[in-house]
Amino acid sequence: MDKFIFSVPTTIFFGEGQARAFAEAVKSYGEKALIVFGGGSVKKNGIYDEITTALHAAGVKTVDHGGIEPNPRVESVRAGIDLVKKEGVDVIVPMGGGSTIDAAKLIAAGALTAADPWKIVIGEAKVTGALPICTVLTLAATGSEMDQGSVITNPETKEKLGWGSPKVLPKASLLNPAYTVSVNGYHTAAGTADIMSHTMENYFTVDDSAFVQDSMAEGVLRACIHAGPAALKDGGDLEARANLMWASSWAINGLLRKGKPQAWSVHPMEHELSAFYDITHGVGLAILTPRWLRHVLSAKTAPKIARFGRRVFDIKSEDDVDAANEAIEALYDFFVRMGIPMTLKEVGIGEEHLAEMAKACANHAGGVIRGFVDLHEEDILAIYKASL
Amino acid sequence: MDKFIFSVPTTIFFGEGQARAFAEAVKSYGEKALIVFGGGSVKKNGIYDEITTALHAAGVKTVDHGGIEPNPRVESVRAGIDLVKKEGVDVIVPMGGGSTIDAAKLIAAGALTAADPWKIVIGEAKVTGALPICTVLTLAATGSEMDQGSVITNPETKEKLGWGSPKVLPKASLLNPAYTVSVNGYHTAAGTADIMSHTMENYFTVDDSAFVQDSMAEGVLRACIHAGPAALKDGGDLEARANLMWASSWAINGLLRKGKPQAWSVHPMEHELSAFYDITHGVGLAILTPRWLRHVLSAKTAPKIARFGRRVFDIKSEDDVDAANEAIEALYDFFVRMGIPMTLKEVGIGEEHLAEMAKACANHAGGVIRGFVDLHEEDILAIYKASL
Repeated sequence: MDKFIFSVPTTIFFGEGQARAFAEAVKSYGEKALIVFGGGSVKKNGIYDEITTALHAAGVKTVDHGGIEPNPRVESVRAGIDLVKKEGVDVIVPMGGGSTIDAAKLIAAGALTAADPWKIVIGEAKVTGALPICTVLTLAATGSEMDQGSVITNPETKEKLGWGSPKVLPKASLLNPAYTVSVNGYHTAAGTADIMSHTMENYFTVDDSAFVQDSMAEGVLRACIHAGPAALKDGGDLEARANLMWASSWAINGLLRKGKPQAWSVHPMEHELSAFYDITHGVGLAILTPRWLRHVLSAKTAPKIARFGRRVFDIKSEDDVDAANEAIEALYDFFVRMGIPMTLKEVGIGEEHLAEMAKACANHAGGVIRGFVDLHEEDILAIYKASL
Repeated sequence: MDKFIFSVPTTIFFGEGQARAFAEAVKSYGEKALIVFGGGSVKKNGIYDEITTALHAAGVKTVDHGGIEPNPRVESVRAGIDLVKKEGVDVIVPMGGGSTIDAAKLIAAGALTAADPWKIVIGEAKVTGALPICTVLTLAATGSEMDQGSVITNPETKEKLGWGSPKVLPKASLLNPAYTVSVNGYHTAAGTADIMSHTMENYFTVDDSAFVQDSMAEGVLRACIHAGPAALKDGGDLEARANLMWASSWAINGLLRKGKPQAWSVHPMEHELSAFYDITHGVGLAILTPRWLRHVLSAKTAPKIARFGRRVFDIKSEDDVDAANEAIEALYDFFVRMGIPMTLKEVGIGEEHLAEMAKACANHAGGVIRGFVDLHEEDILAIYKASL
């Protein structure tokens, strides 16, 4: 196991009836909150009212900043920063899924520097500080409620890039599974795929000495496979919603990653798809992951893929290559059962930009994706083509 | 899943070469540290020198308080509090296993109140605050390095009782697996049993809706079963030591417990054994656990015990009662393979005080242990007798 520092001080308020306690936590960080949200579903389903009522009762004033896009754009962040400065906001309260929280993180950091926020994303400006962030989660998927990362899209440069800082780790997050019952089947499936992808990106590494992390990762994956179909069958199944929600936080908050080499492969490939085509992130991950595993399967990688199959999908084959092949099929079939369109064509992506995206992907990774298996531009292109 | 608040802000410095970073963290909490340790093994194996050198280099002065007992006694805590007050200490640095850290927690809380520290343990005095605690772990077992709990023995009243407060959660903990290579086989086995017991106490509850927690618990147990024998075979196996160490923290820091009913059963029964006889805690847990599971096995509990067997020990039986019985045998056999004496007689406990201990145990639990299955005084006595 490699050496590491683990520090995740986010306070999680989990379950129903925690809005008041959450509001008191927000109050401890400031008197005026920027409420960041997306297309307005939180206003329709009552979450906005419930939270703002609790915040006002706790003595926190609120300023609205709605309209954050599903792949959050840097323009929306700039507008948020302007509002923070104009209104004298001192705490950021995103109310939504990963997109809204990711935008809130860049607003929080961008508000404390004169640099343009895109410069933070591309690493040309430093994160000197950040306003405190307290999130209200409405979609179990990205884990942004308990991690330091954020992904922002710049339509002008056709770039969708990740950045992060310990300074933007949320101080508090309200995780009420009841807030996710109105998420439709498509986004429930995409969210489940996203949680599983984070877990698998952490799991599939060349060094297997972090047995605690990997065994706990298998547990998170089993929970997704247990709860995902249940939530799809009955959107109001609070037990399934609760398990997906708590899985989303642990998939990516550092526990499953720390002590291991960093080897994320599928996310960089997917980011090009949603930068070029604005598709749903989790769907892109679900399409690419089985093709990626098939591409990297070899005598060397088979034991880990076989272990994954045995632990997560109860694959019985004793031969590692057989078990690995069955595991990849089982994963593909699971995504099909979740109703995810499993080809790029079904989400409107043809051959036309594949080469351009593969090149951009390799470039963003510094030439080669150093993952479970190194992926060069031609590997990335082959995986895209196999996903058509 | 029940509602809960999860907040574990301890910063973990994991692995080799982190002493300097840890010392800087200590420095951020104070200028004068009380070094709390046990029988002096940390002075023989170089850990004391390495840490105090790093602390002095960081500008932290140190005061020694050694001699903490394996089941830490309240007198040693009182002496520590006197030293803190006399020397003007402002941060507590325990260097050892759970006993040392547990004593440090009561010193940290006791130093900020005029009440006798035993009154904190028995709930007659409030924890009004605590000096910051930064731990150096030398034994993977109790998880005290990342939790809010502490267990203290009072020889005068023959009581060994747990208490806890968020105020005594360590601010930072240094987890260097190399610091545990000199732990002998007996204590390695006992520590592994302790980690597994914490995990099982959290796992076996009447409500199974917290699937994420339970699946991750199965992962922690698999890691113990993987790493325990490896560390026993070769004490210098750093990979095994690292996995046991990281498992110890996650078994009990709240992740596996929160969102579920509280149902600890074996710890209260074991505490009487070590209060009356001063035996090694983990050994007492290993002896009692299979007998407890056998005692509570019924058509109602069989599915969960069977799930445990299938996930952790790869039990194949499809019938739940068969699988549960095989799981209990597999657990017993695992402890035997770890070299743990598996009867009370082998650790010097005869029939003479069993009834008295069963009575005391029920009393301390308020009459009945409300666990996976409720345990009355006669159940506790039956489990003790089955363990002879």
